[in-house]
Amino acid sequence: MSYPQITFIHTSFPSSSPSFISRRRGVVYANTLLYQLNVLKETGRYDAFKLKWHDSYSDKPNVWPVPNHLFWDSDVAKWLEGACYFLMTEEGENEEIDGAVKELVQMIRGAQGEDGYLNIHFTVVEPAKRFTNLRDLHELYNAGHLIEAALAHSRHYQNDLLMEPLVKYVDLLYETFGPGPAQKHGYPGHPEIELALLRLYEKTGNPKHLSLAQYFITERGNPTGQYGRHYYDVEAEARGEGEHQVPAYMESKGAYWYHQAHKPIIEQETIEGHSVRAMYLLTAVADLVRVESKTDRDSYRKALQRLWSNMVDKKMYLTGGIGAMGQWEGFGLDYFLPSGSDEGGCYAETCAAIGVMMLAERLLQIDLDGKFADIMELCFYNAVMTGMSAKGTQFTYVNQLASSDKHLSQRAKWFTCACCPPNVTRLLGYIGGYLWSFDTDEQKKSVLVKVHMYSSAQLSISVGKDTVELEQKSNWPWNGKIELTLRGISEVATTIKLRIPGWAEGWEISPSLPSKHVEKGYLTLPADWLKHNPKFELNIPLKPRFVSPHPYTNQDIVALARGPLIYCVEDFDNSWVDDHFKSLLLDPTAAIEEKEGAADEVGEPYIGLTIRNAASFIDVDKSHAPHMSLKSATQEKASGADELHFIPYALRDNRGGKGHMRVGIRRKR
Amino acid sequence: MSYPQITFIHTSFPSSSPSFISRRRGVVYANTLLYQLNVLKETGRYDAFKLKWHDSYSDKPNVWPVPNHLFWDSDVAKWLEGACYFLMTEEGENEEIDGAVKELVQMIRGAQGEDGYLNIHFTVVEPAKRFTNLRDLHELYNAGHLIEAALAHSRHYQNDLLMEPLVKYVDLLYETFGPGPAQKHGYPGHPEIELALLRLYEKTGNPKHLSLAQYFITERGNPTGQYGRHYYDVEAEARGEGEHQVPAYMESKGAYWYHQAHKPIIEQETIEGHSVRAMYLLTAVADLVRVESKTDRDSYRKALQRLWSNMVDKKMYLTGGIGAMGQWEGFGLDYFLPSGSDEGGCYAETCAAIGVMMLAERLLQIDLDGKFADIMELCFYNAVMTGMSAKGTQFTYVNQLASSDKHLSQRAKWFTCACCPPNVTRLLGYIGGYLWSFDTDEQKKSVLVKVHMYSSAQLSISVGKDTVELEQKSNWPWNGKIELTLRGISEVATTIKLRIPGWAEGWEISPSLPSKHVEKGYLTLPADWLKHNPKFELNIPLKPRFVSPHPYTNQDIVALARGPLIYCVEDFDNSWVDDHFKSLLLDPTAAIEEKEGAADEVGEPYIGLTIRNAASFIDVDKSHAPHMSLKSATQEKASGADELHFIPYALRDNRGGKGHMRVGIRRKR
Ligand SMILES: [Zn+2]
Ligand SMILES: [Zn+2]
Repeated sequence: MSYPQITFIHTSFPSSSPSFISRRRGVVYANTLLYQLNVLKETGRYDAFKLKWHDSYSDKPNVWPVPNHLFWDSDVAKWLEGACYFLMTEEGENEEIDGAVKELVQMIRGAQGEDGYLNIHFTVVEPAKRFTNLRDLHELYNAGHLIEAALAHSRHYQNDLLMEPLVKYVDLLYETFGPGPAQKHGYPGHPEIELALLRLYEKTGNPKHLSLAQYFITERGNPTGQYGRHYYDVEAEARGEGEHQVPAYMESKGAYWYHQAHKPIIEQETIEGHSVRAMYLLTAVADLVRVESKTDRDSYRKALQRLWSNMVDKKMYLTGGIGAMGQWEGFGLDYFLPSGSDEGGCYAETCAAIGVMMLAERLLQIDLDGKFADIMELCFYNAVMTGMSAKGTQFTYVNQLASSDKHLSQRAKWFTCACCPPNVTRLLGYIGGYLWSFDTDEQKKSVLVKVHMYSSAQLSISVGKDTVELEQKSNWPWNGKIELTLRGISEVATTIKLRIPGWAEGWEISPSLPSKHVEKGYLTLPADWLKHNPKFELNIPLKPRFVSPHPYTNQDIVALARGPLIYCVEDFDNSWVDDHFKSLLLDPTAAIEEKEGAADEVGEPYIGLTIRNAASFIDVDKSHAPHMSLKSATQEKASGADELHFIPYALRDNRGGKGHMRVGIRRKR
Repeated sequence: MSYPQITFIHTSFPSSSPSFISRRRGVVYANTLLYQLNVLKETGRYDAFKLKWHDSYSDKPNVWPVPNHLFWDSDVAKWLEGACYFLMTEEGENEEIDGAVKELVQMIRGAQGEDGYLNIHFTVVEPAKRFTNLRDLHELYNAGHLIEAALAHSRHYQNDLLMEPLVKYVDLLYETFGPGPAQKHGYPGHPEIELALLRLYEKTGNPKHLSLAQYFITERGNPTGQYGRHYYDVEAEARGEGEHQVPAYMESKGAYWYHQAHKPIIEQETIEGHSVRAMYLLTAVADLVRVESKTDRDSYRKALQRLWSNMVDKKMYLTGGIGAMGQWEGFGLDYFLPSGSDEGGCYAETCAAIGVMMLAERLLQIDLDGKFADIMELCFYNAVMTGMSAKGTQFTYVNQLASSDKHLSQRAKWFTCACCPPNVTRLLGYIGGYLWSFDTDEQKKSVLVKVHMYSSAQLSISVGKDTVELEQKSNWPWNGKIELTLRGISEVATTIKLRIPGWAEGWEISPSLPSKHVEKGYLTLPADWLKHNPKFELNIPLKPRFVSPHPYTNQDIVALARGPLIYCVEDFDNSWVDDHFKSLLLDPTAAIEEKEGAADEVGEPYIGLTIRNAASFIDVDKSHAPHMSLKSATQEKASGADELHFIPYALRDNRGGKGHMRVGIRRKR
């Protein structure tokens, strides 16, 4: 049982061999943490735990019935969590960040009620309404993020200044929620506390913490949870919600699939509703399955497999983004994956892709299968990393695969609902935990390291008094050569499993291995081979290639990929574009050329791609509606665009331009 | 100024040369009128004007806040209107229909209040709420349909038994609505009364009738209509509608684009919202433009052009169906035209296509352009005629272009909201008015006949004491040969304009014409030529062809067309299908064979189409997500289907089967 938020501490990123990951981390440590801290201060979030009135508390909600400031607790908590991860791993003091963490912790401690209650909105604005709207009002979501912050804080500062109030708050929650006749049989509309409680339990061993997480997970979607009815129905009635009042994000009264609460999780056949909620929930389910491995949670295990497959096979964009439907920030019909809002939808929230990574990592621990790691890496390098600018001070919430006049490809400085920016921060804080996982056996003096993602990084594992170190040096994802060095294994039988990505068209290892058998995406390097070959090199050729989504998406497009990276075209270096590349046709038999891009452009010495003499355009003016001869429908104009230039989707919108961008280009016949 | 509901009386369908149209009319006269009458009786609609309580009045609305029985007035009115049209034109007595019409009229007369008010729901169920919810409650829509019924009734029976109460009701409406300080500055959420009032004005010449129509049209969408605010806002507030109460069909509070009332009509740039409402409204706008041709209605004329083009070019299915969005029974984004609900939407309500025909006919009168007639004919033979079964006793409401397990290709006996079935009835009642239009000049003793649609039919026009007759004999749409005979022109200079369809790849006329110039889709036969050639023949070859929608629809499909007919595949004669033809690929270079189908199968001796050795299938199992190599994405399996059989979309679901159907087949590379 391990969590990347715990194991990341075993990983370091030597400054001697920088990589994409270490450079992104460097930007966050140098710029983002402080930038976000200043935003927290300017917007009132930083001081909010002082429990004074803030003018914005009177604002009309952008999305009824959710006050705009409702998430402030979590914004602060995620920043705090991320800050602690960086303080734990980065070299050099950072007094400003350190000081802010300490001050915030004091404010949070001061904000707790006598009975343990801890929430800004329901203390300052609506004190009488605590726990009356679990469905909409993110009370327990905020609590979950505060618990995660406390876990990070106690780890770094080795004190309980933040943990103490949170454990006290959880005691109150444990009394409030549960199966008892005087308890509320409720659970949060936005999952998060479940995974936080399971992590808390791992630290505290307090059975109450496990029990409350179990309750929230297993009670969810119970049609007869409270007085024989769905908890959210009873709760809504109790607060006098009108029969025809329903938040805009819910399709209709009682459409609890938005919250993944339309039926018990084990009965859910397809992944539905709000995508971030779904990912946080399933991450917690995977953790529950792991904690309770001895008891029978087979139906939850099956639900995880079923919902994961439905998501990945039918509801995921080729960038790893999930959620086609802006209306409810979530999943649409199977295979409904339009490229942009002008074509019917494309949301792909940054947080949702972070959630996919969380879930994939847990599933990898349950079942070591490269298909999970492939998606984890796809999300990281595309749907997640596109969420932050090169300088680390601009962010996305929505990550469409094509821009339109209404929704340009542009990052923003911040958001009213600011879940995404601090989520990227904390993810990069513990990203080391995603690179590899390991199992040690002190008795047998053995260790098994599973390498999921390549980069330049160093893993350090204690086995008894020995320390095994595995170092990888690579300019991944730009270069497919990975040099690995194993140290300290004279007394420790060490086995390594190396992921061979699903997209790899080939791979080589040297010195050569006795067996090149790859099982479920992983190549095993046996302990005896490693003893003789502690230095070895893996080579995975990174050739640019064309990829396409499932034909049922009705997206007859090709995108360029290279290794785990998905590319896009931008107007910056295709300046002729005036229609967001909507009429562009690309011949997928064309050769793809690589070209090194300047680091100063995008914060990263990258590889761009160019295709020559393969572009044409739909002759839109020749088209007439509602139907036309096939010949007219497929009429093409010659292109003025002799060259098409592609840049990784993660690096888009860093060089100026007018915001025209597209990932999947219409396929020329 | 003419209306097809008036001019149809000039057209007869000689039983000596039956055609698609006359056979469909025959079915309605023999079966449908009586069948629908019985349904009206069984469901309580027939007796509802007796103003007794009906059990169903207590039912919870399927769609809040609209009571399920709210449309009963209009269901009866449309049937009544249709019945009168048939009684006027069909030979032979029909005592049962005639008797029912007379009884209904007596009941309607008896249902009128002292002050002229006439509405079932607001008299029986909610008498205090009259005119308090124009936005949702269809009060004026019902009134409009009753006016249209009265116009048909007075024409056939040559009495005012139904007209009298309606004129009295309109007097009340005229007092109630208008710009005066004591009047309501409102207009109906569902247009219909506007076009009815304009037709009424044509008959009565009463300026109040014109004035009220003008008011409803020009006031619509006024942001400061009532007390400086939008009328619907003021009205909603007055009835105490909660801030977060909003009907499910409205996207959000104040989203009046659903009702085409988000801004004044002349400012509307794109066609939006509920498709039937939009068509009824624009039909009335076109009528207003025609009535007021002397005054300046140029901005309305431009709005008509703009909205028509937006609809036809970007929001119309290749069957002529409109409305991709089931949520609001209406228009989606430009080019958003998925084939079925499993792919994101496809509504294409039967009434909406009838509305397109109404609008197209009006636009043809304003501007004789074959592009309007092409769409009118496309709608009739596909999106409308698919709405009724061969026997005339089953109907559709939604007309998807592809079935799915949730929404099979199946007609129903009736609907709770039953707008469509009687709408088909009344359309076929006056369909003769769509075939042609004419202008006479008594002074010059001249007539101009514009032939818009071909069939076997006879037109009879009085010019002074002379009667000009034009007869067309044709087995259209199965055969492109049309024999035309003109009679009675010795004293009348007669010119004919023949429509040459936009899809026609060629045409021939014999005897030959001096000029073969086709202007805006019409070929002129000059009076002097006709004098010498009163019998002539037009030949428009009807060759099957492949058609496709605009590439921006992301529907990379081909459909089969022949003349105005669009075809589909059904499981009945492609029995291997198990996936609604979703994985089917069709090679559009294949030859298309014609095959005569048996009349007893579908009520019509039709031409089926067959394609051999051109089908294959997507190898769905080879696909993996979220992306794959282009090769995998385009992998095909050989087909077991050596032959694909196609049948006109209008004739689908008449032969049994399991309800698998598709119009547009994925295009094979
Ligand atoms: Zn977010
Ligand atoms: Zn209808």
